[in-house]
Amino acid sequence: MKRIKIKELLSNSSQYIDQQVVLKGWVRTKRGNKHVAFVALNDGSTIHTIQIVLDVAKFNEEQLKDVTTGACISISGKVVTSQGAGQSIEVQGDTLEVIGVADPETYPLQKKGHSLEFLREIAHLRPRTNTFSCVLRLRHAMAFAVHSFFNEKGFVYVHTPIITGSDAEGAGAMFQVTTLDLKNPSKTKEGEVDFTKDFFGKATNLTVSGQLEGELAAMALGEVYTFGPTFRAENSNTTRHLAEFWMIEPEMAFYEIQDNMDLAEEFLKYLVKYALDNCIDDLNFLNEMYDKELIERLKSVVETPFVRLNYTEAVDILIATKQKFEYKVEWGIDLQSEHERYLVEKHFKKPVILTNYPKAIKAFYMKANEDGKTVRAMDVLFPGIGEIIGGSQREDNLEKLQERCKEVGIHENDIWWYLETRKFGSAPHSGFGLGFERLMLFVTGMGNIRDVIPFPRTPQSAEF
Amino acid sequence: MKRIKIKELLSNSSQYIDQQVVLKGWVRTKRGNKHVAFVALNDGSTIHTIQIVLDVAKFNEEQLKDVTTGACISISGKVVTSQGAGQSIEVQGDTLEVIGVADPETYPLQKKGHSLEFLREIAHLRPRTNTFSCVLRLRHAMAFAVHSFFNEKGFVYVHTPIITGSDAEGAGAMFQVTTLDLKNPSKTKEGEVDFTKDFFGKATNLTVSGQLEGELAAMALGEVYTFGPTFRAENSNTTRHLAEFWMIEPEMAFYEIQDNMDLAEEFLKYLVKYALDNCIDDLNFLNEMYDKELIERLKSVVETPFVRLNYTEAVDILIATKQKFEYKVEWGIDLQSEHERYLVEKHFKKPVILTNYPKAIKAFYMKANEDGKTVRAMDVLFPGIGEIIGGSQREDNLEKLQERCKEVGIHENDIWWYLETRKFGSAPHSGFGLGFERLMLFVTGMGNIRDVIPFPRTPQSAEF
Repeated sequence: MKRIKIKELLSNSSQYIDQQVVLKGWVRTKRGNKHVAFVALNDGSTIHTIQIVLDVAKFNEEQLKDVTTGACISISGKVVTSQGAGQSIEVQGDTLEVIGVADPETYPLQKKGHSLEFLREIAHLRPRTNTFSCVLRLRHAMAFAVHSFFNEKGFVYVHTPIITGSDAEGAGAMFQVTTLDLKNPSKTKEGEVDFTKDFFGKATNLTVSGQLEGELAAMALGEVYTFGPTFRAENSNTTRHLAEFWMIEPEMAFYEIQDNMDLAEEFLKYLVKYALDNCIDDLNFLNEMYDKELIERLKSVVETPFVRLNYTEAVDILIATKQKFEYKVEWGIDLQSEHERYLVEKHFKKPVILTNYPKAIKAFYMKANEDGKTVRAMDVLFPGIGEIIGGSQREDNLEKLQERCKEVGIHENDIWWYLETRKFGSAPHSGFGLGFERLMLFVTGMGNIRDVIPFPRTPQSAEF
Repeated sequence: MKRIKIKELLSNSSQYIDQQVVLKGWVRTKRGNKHVAFVALNDGSTIHTIQIVLDVAKFNEEQLKDVTTGACISISGKVVTSQGAGQSIEVQGDTLEVIGVADPETYPLQKKGHSLEFLREIAHLRPRTNTFSCVLRLRHAMAFAVHSFFNEKGFVYVHTPIITGSDAEGAGAMFQVTTLDLKNPSKTKEGEVDFTKDFFGKATNLTVSGQLEGELAAMALGEVYTFGPTFRAENSNTTRHLAEFWMIEPEMAFYEIQDNMDLAEEFLKYLVKYALDNCIDDLNFLNEMYDKELIERLKSVVETPFVRLNYTEAVDILIATKQKFEYKVEWGIDLQSEHERYLVEKHFKKPVILTNYPKAIKAFYMKANEDGKTVRAMDVLFPGIGEIIGGSQREDNLEKLQERCKEVGIHENDIWWYLETRKFGSAPHSGFGLGFERLMLFVTGMGNIRDVIPFPRTPQSAEF
């Protein structure tokens, strides 16, 4: 008989009543008495377990002893309406096979309620917990929703390079990638590292953003997006930073800053709505266990138009309020998390898109406004998260872009290929970046970014 | 008026007849005479161009001069039935804006028929060619089909780590990732590189495969897959190798080798059928320009059951044939491309799945057969490509796996977390890897792997 998944059984339970089924999965708990044993079985397809009822007299005692938390078993039996509370159906076991034991003396996931810190140390086993199976199914759903959203709109998914010889994006400290002998690297006569001997014939790093390459593709294919890993070699041990994380970066020809904001808002609402529509069981669990306002907050984002506001107006609001901030507010500062969260959580009580930031605090490629002081940047600020999206209209005028490169010290030789998109068939275009793990923090309600990625990479930590 | 994309206009042309539209895109060609100019406009949404007809008398002469190959323009005008050959509709231009010029003296993509080698040197512009826009749209379609296939089946997409402290997979030479000062790396008293001073506190590399981590997730979530970049620091300058490429790696609990073969065959057929169903315009172009048998070959893969054959039987066939091979065939050898292609292209004339390979030529994690000599490996061999998928049932018995680690010199300390999946709740499971660029070679008919990825990374080459 073909095995069915527990999600399938529970979703279509009425059609399985009185049918024989085969189930395979891992034991979450076993309880009972001398006559009957109740096994809660999970196979990862859903947060829910199915109750297996075993008539103790029908089974070998030794075999039943091996049915412990974490053990892998196969069961065949009949689906019946459950008499117990908490489930509508259960399976009366006919045959039982213990596929893989889990010694109760050594299996680490015995008791309920391990700390998240402890679970990080056993990241190879934590997907077997309710919490992480929820997070990982939601992560899948969000990734699929990203691709579905852009595919429906005719965007082209572009794999921008991970290893890069360019460091012009300037988004942060980079990891070096090399095949040189670290103990005795080749040196030039002048005693410098001789990168001509390295694999790529020059110094290379891990990318901090696929944006610049994404723009190249947008100026040919119209609307594109990237979705890939990006890296920061920053020694930040916070609940918000990873050394390796995933980014989604759409780039669109013929989009001005307003179109960019429209797309960002539509995109975020689509993603959150997708989670509510497709993952409500997992969200209910997380809402119950970690964050009682999670589902309310998700619904509110889907239903509420985002506030759109100039940076300058935001600064005025922050100066006018009686709220005390650690960092003083004045025009020109890079807003801190405390400022962003005040605007979103206290002042407007809804998501905010800030635009037209001071030129001096934003990247070289952002389109200059005519005031000479601000650029067409936009940040989307979310409750509980702060900045979830950062983007801008891109400078499409070659001379202005060259001037800006000079101002910030970028050599034209290093990004000749980027500049050529402005030289040949240039067009207004825009784009933004969504940190996938920031999105996952928002959608799951988890508090630490290490808990929304399967195997976190942070300073001093690259296990598994 | 809102701009529409050319794909939308051409797909629903009858409903746009006599309507005013706004189109934006890049000029492919301009021809005509003193009275009328015909502009072929492309916006990346489709391989097709739309013909714009400009009554020369209605436009500024200087402006028309700027309408050259590669220039970006915006046009508004009326859609009419075309009198000319080669298109059913055209647009009579009313207003014209040249958004970005492309100086004919310097714009590199002037003439038709640039060599693929030349286009690699201008990878920032080659998406603007017909060939690469086709390849990139197909690449998008195949990536989306991968996600759709697994999502429909309830698989969970798992982002396995890119930076890894483990090199146990042993699939090839690795790139080092470091923040140490390459000129003067920290050294221990013994004069060795002191990796405790490195970012992660130990030596780290770029992953060669997400399989081991994928297995961890499969033993919790049941069915998972990865789709991410992988790396080989091998000095191979061939048409089949990249230093950075994308891999898809499903891992499934409770799948034995037959289930694994079933999934691989279904998966490949789904992908190829998706291309035929969704990208026929792009395929027609590639079929016409590069490979007259492309579409026939794709259809044949969808329709033909794959041959399934033991390695031993394959060796017998290769020994029995009169065909001369460069490498002599005997039981135990790793089959060469010439052998694989003989089986697929000459002997069977259809895709072949080879199984039960000699233990000695396969990886440590593959499940041993009872004969003690072979393992439950499988390779899927494709016409024109050779191996497109490699996979196996995984060794799920802890003792056998430990023994195998010892034989091949892998220290248990380095993969304690991998071994623990066999210690706690182990289950039969299987998986495979599909090189995404191998798939793209097959689907596009292109001959060089550098031409199916936007920005290829190869020895001595990491531009853009």
